[in-house]
Amino acid sequence: RINSARLWDSLMEMAKIGPGVAGGNNRQTLTDADAEGRALFQSWCEAAGLTMGVDKMGTMFMRREGTEPDALPVYIGSHLDTQPTGGKYDGVLGVLAGLETLRTMNDLGIKTKHPIVLTNWANEEGARFAPAMLASGVFAGVHTLDYAYGRKDLEGKTYGAELERIGWKGGEEVGARKMHAYFEYHIEQGPILEAEEKTIGVVTHCQGLWWLEFTLTGKEAHTGSTPMAMRVNAGLAMARIFEMVQEVTMAAQPNAVGGVGQVTFSPNSRNVLPGTVVFTVDIRTVDQEKLDAMRAAIETRAAAICAELGVGCAVEAVGHFDPVTFTPELVGRVRAAAEKLGYSHMDIVSGAGHDACWAAKVAPTTMIMCPCVDGLSHNEAEEISSDWAAAGADVLLHAVLETAEV
Amino acid sequence: RINSARLWDSLMEMAKIGPGVAGGNNRQTLTDADAEGRALFQSWCEAAGLTMGVDKMGTMFMRREGTEPDALPVYIGSHLDTQPTGGKYDGVLGVLAGLETLRTMNDLGIKTKHPIVLTNWANEEGARFAPAMLASGVFAGVHTLDYAYGRKDLEGKTYGAELERIGWKGGEEVGARKMHAYFEYHIEQGPILEAEEKTIGVVTHCQGLWWLEFTLTGKEAHTGSTPMAMRVNAGLAMARIFEMVQEVTMAAQPNAVGGVGQVTFSPNSRNVLPGTVVFTVDIRTVDQEKLDAMRAAIETRAAAICAELGVGCAVEAVGHFDPVTFTPELVGRVRAAAEKLGYSHMDIVSGAGHDACWAAKVAPTTMIMCPCVDGLSHNEAEEISSDWAAAGADVLLHAVLETAEV
Ligand SMILES: NC(=O)NCCC(=O)O
Ligand SMILES: NC(=O)NCCC(=O)O
Repeated sequence: RINSARLWDSLMEMAKIGPGVAGGNNRQTLTDADAEGRALFQSWCEAAGLTMGVDKMGTMFMRREGTEPDALPVYIGSHLDTQPTGGKYDGVLGVLAGLETLRTMNDLGIKTKHPIVLTNWANEEGARFAPAMLASGVFAGVHTLDYAYGRKDLEGKTYGAELERIGWKGGEEVGARKMHAYFEYHIEQGPILEAEEKTIGVVTHCQGLWWLEFTLTGKEAHTGSTPMAMRVNAGLAMARIFEMVQEVTMAAQPNAVGGVGQVTFSPNSRNVLPGTVVFTVDIRTVDQEKLDAMRAAIETRAAAICAELGVGCAVEAVGHFDPVTFTPELVGRVRAAAEKLGYSHMDIVSGAGHDACWAAKVAPTTMIMCPCVDGLSHNEAEEISSDWAAAGADVLLHAVLETAEV
Repeated sequence: RINSARLWDSLMEMAKIGPGVAGGNNRQTLTDADAEGRALFQSWCEAAGLTMGVDKMGTMFMRREGTEPDALPVYIGSHLDTQPTGGKYDGVLGVLAGLETLRTMNDLGIKTKHPIVLTNWANEEGARFAPAMLASGVFAGVHTLDYAYGRKDLEGKTYGAELERIGWKGGEEVGARKMHAYFEYHIEQGPILEAEEKTIGVVTHCQGLWWLEFTLTGKEAHTGSTPMAMRVNAGLAMARIFEMVQEVTMAAQPNAVGGVGQVTFSPNSRNVLPGTVVFTVDIRTVDQEKLDAMRAAIETRAAAICAELGVGCAVEAVGHFDPVTFTPELVGRVRAAAEKLGYSHMDIVSGAGHDACWAAKVAPTTMIMCPCVDGLSHNEAEEISSDWAAAGADVLLHAVLETAEV
């Protein structure tokens, strides 16, 4: 079993970097806080005898040698970047539990045939630069490097320029590494495990996603002196699209979600009807056909809503992944490890997207989950217990050891 | 008649300060651009022999002496501040046309019994600091100076601190001046004069207004892993309130408007259901009872919408003025001047709020309007013709001379 206190201490140390305003973290991708978090992680890894590689997307790879150095490595990974008002565990748990498994192997003098590589993927959250899971997406060949470098934050700064600025642009070609297997451990970010009183989620699938960025063009005009009949009201169109997304999602129940997290009015002045409203619809479900039908319904109905109001409507898909089925053999290994260690467990579908979703395109992949209090994540109040954290790390250790072959 | 070319030149010179991105202006209150515009205006006024007073709100008063220096002055005014994406004429026309009438009096050696004071009211737009017409509101005793100094922009900077920073905090007590009469000339900011092919709007009334700032509190949570039934969705509540405001406004037709220009999501991340949504509803009509009934309906129905979704709902009135009836004697003088000068004219209700609405509380007051192309204002594309600009300035000159007594 891993050292639960050491894992918890590392989590608390990392949480000091990029503190939030309400007990959580704001350590967004390619900020100074991100650079500081990376440096701390690097120092811990080097102290554990790992050697670092960094690719051109800024993803960090920390290698523990195997007895057969030419065997393909087993990868463990997740991410250290956070939401603007994020929690202390989302992503971080997976990376630091991975480190804890390697520290435990060192303590116990365990040698594996396959090397093990601990990975901190860059820009998993997609909060500052859409889409989410950007570096793993380039790694899996889904995006080009040029596309990724050109992604912009709300201030117009690009991924490429910010990566250079913080000094974490490595020399490795992205995706050049080949993986024997990929494991990712993550908090559930939903309410199911806690409600079912299970300590371990054996992740069999991940929901697919579309992020549809709408740009609505109205007629910028005075709120007081523009008669109702003369308005080209992009704000009203946005409101009707919100309600319609809710309807489409409810009609797709069970096992589908839809909502909006980001809205920008321009010029955003109380007495100006907006000239432009930009917002992103987020829809997800594990059923490929249903997902694409939701997208089609939303686009068709949004076009009709805008046409009725005379509002211009452009839609760009700024994020997408298909539903994922994880590798049955690895899933079985996670389930067996939980069983052997005596942890309560259940099969679960990941509601959130993870780097594992892209890794699954290029390697046998699976995930492990632990509960989080009230199912709350992407919230500074995100919380887990030290026991939950440790249980998942134990399962990770055993599943990885079996795969890397002792 | 005034010098139309000189008026237009001054308008174009002022428009060079705080240029916008699409041909208009961004010279928001208490920015560096505002300070620059004030300095240019001051230099022009001093060249025209006017003497300056500045009050504690930063309003500028430029005085032309009368033959009876103790007679109460006739005031002409409007504002030089703009929206973030504002036009070149909104406010500016009234100030510079006022200057042009005084330059014309100088050219023609006209002396008046009453002094004339040209006024640049601070923070008319209310874009950076709500409410609109802030300095004239303090002048009229509607707001306290402390209230005004404490108003904050979206970055949390206060009016008081920014006024000191740009160096335009004067020593005069706000509202100490007494007015014989107040005239304000402004573009219509609506489509009526152009549609009716009239050059002069004789403004009889102004619509009353409520700005209702809603703060909706939801549960910040992951858009992917939070099931629909567990969401406390402040964004959806906002959308329903938008639609409801539209319904309430349509039910109050004719002669009522309602809409939303400013919306802020927090944390505003694509995969986070917002913890907080703040937005301001703007409703206006010239009928006092209808205005208050709209407000009551909106607050009651918003509370019900939020209750159904479990969303917290707080409402603050961040702007308000009652409908205004301008002084019949001065209104008649404007109508007579338009008639005498041979300009087509019609009576009109101001859709927008103006400093004249507060001045009307403490002095005989009226307004003059000229058309604007397509009724467009609060838009960088705002446009007027030089002939329209001059016609209103001519009417202003004649109405003021009659009031100030030659
Ligand atoms: N795990 C996680 O929050 N990933 C961000 C991408 C997503 O929105 O699912
Ligand atoms: N004239 C003008 O646009 N004033 C700003 C206050 C308002 O919104 O009416």
